[in-house]
Amino acid sequence: MNNPYHSAKDRLPPRDQLIMGLHAITELVRHAPKRILKIYTSASNAQERKGNLLKECERLNIPIVSTSEDNLTKMCGSDSHQSFAAHVKGRGFLDVKEFLAKIEGQERSLLLLCDQIFDPQNFGALLRSAECFGADGVVWSKNRGSDLTPAAAKASCGASEWMTLIRVSNLAEAVSQLQEGGFEVLAAVVTPGSKNAFQFPFKPRTAFVVGSEGEGIQPLIQKRADHCLHIPMFGKIESLNVAQAATTLLTCYRLGL
Amino acid sequence: MNNPYHSAKDRLPPRDQLIMGLHAITELVRHAPKRILKIYTSASNAQERKGNLLKECERLNIPIVSTSEDNLTKMCGSDSHQSFAAHVKGRGFLDVKEFLAKIEGQERSLLLLCDQIFDPQNFGALLRSAECFGADGVVWSKNRGSDLTPAAAKASCGASEWMTLIRVSNLAEAVSQLQEGGFEVLAAVVTPGSKNAFQFPFKPRTAFVVGSEGEGIQPLIQKRADHCLHIPMFGKIESLNVAQAATTLLTCYRLGL
Repeated sequence: MNNPYHSAKDRLPPRDQLIMGLHAITELVRHAPKRILKIYTSASNAQERKGNLLKECERLNIPIVSTSEDNLTKMCGSDSHQSFAAHVKGRGFLDVKEFLAKIEGQERSLLLLCDQIFDPQNFGALLRSAECFGADGVVWSKNRGSDLTPAAAKASCGASEWMTLIRVSNLAEAVSQLQEGGFEVLAAVVTPGSKNAFQFPFKPRTAFVVGSEGEGIQPLIQKRADHCLHIPMFGKIESLNVAQAATTLLTCYRLGL
Repeated sequence: MNNPYHSAKDRLPPRDQLIMGLHAITELVRHAPKRILKIYTSASNAQERKGNLLKECERLNIPIVSTSEDNLTKMCGSDSHQSFAAHVKGRGFLDVKEFLAKIEGQERSLLLLCDQIFDPQNFGALLRSAECFGADGVVWSKNRGSDLTPAAAKASCGASEWMTLIRVSNLAEAVSQLQEGGFEVLAAVVTPGSKNAFQFPFKPRTAFVVGSEGEGIQPLIQKRADHCLHIPMFGKIESLNVAQAATTLLTCYRLGL
């Protein structure tokens, strides 16, 4: 393709297929370029400032569409796009059975279950942490929490595009299915009987459940979980935010193996 | 005081003495009420919705000022106030010598040094994590990074108000002073010789240095640090965000003791 710069007149993609933000798109181009259909940019001095990113897109034959800052904001539903958005292929999700089939024969497996995470920033941060700690997937209920909005994808640093995603209708049911599949399910919640995450002997197949600060974890899920875990707090604040809590648990799992 | 509701006509406090956000202010009322001079609120159905918080303020004789949503936004320089702002006493900072005097005779001590953290959300999240993991203080340079803005204080969940804060002019000099005071200074940065944080034998007096994703840690500080530490990454993304990285290091320190 000689001139990959098109006008932005063609039909705009739906928001759930847009990734915004320079960092997220750079990671995406690096790790999953085939998922990108087009790059939209409003960077006027793009050649100078973001030369490498756009040059790499040209090299990979990814079409680049010039558009206005305002249009990008409208497309993304947010002004945090940093002059860049990527239109990506709609991606598939697994259900729990498909996931269990995928990891068959694999002794160790790490999962993160997100319960009632309505804030896309937190959801994205959880995806990023899960990716960095080598989780095999992230599970959430499409009815109870944020979906993969551009803001979530941005906060995930691109991980939303290559992480195995398990989107279910009922998270409590997913807990039971995972337990049948050999996972120990651990709910991050302070209860009278909760165990100290710093001293917990993790099983090779572990699934952590985290909930939002406001809503917490649904009672049915707490009940079905094999154990509740708490993170020791050394100050006055009662809890970490959900992304920090997940990071702490993932660290404990990795250090415990 | 019979009627703690005043009009908002009196002179407004400077932004660096405002804390915004319901969660942060609730923690503040709980743990450091004497630092609060006034509460500003635009909650019209405050008595119903946030009854407990305002009742508690009344019980503690903290004046409550009714104001408009717009005015709060103007005062805080942000619309994330959730209808609440607290005017707090300007707080003091220690320098490194004063801090070392404060912890004299204490064998163990944990510190977090923030280098070039310009994003107030990240700065606040770092304060919160440091507080939760029982750090004795947070150190940063007033010339290179965010200051305690209302957004930082909110993200810190109130920790900014009772955490020991060491604000210095030169962070590299602070590193040397801390080393003379018996601290091992560990810079979170991937270098050819950096050590694996998951296998590192921490000293009782440990100071972690973290930098922003964009700017990193200043070369002079990397050079003065006793060691550079990296966090093993198990996925494709190169690094955690700075608050997640700090949380991981603080977890390692706590698990290693």
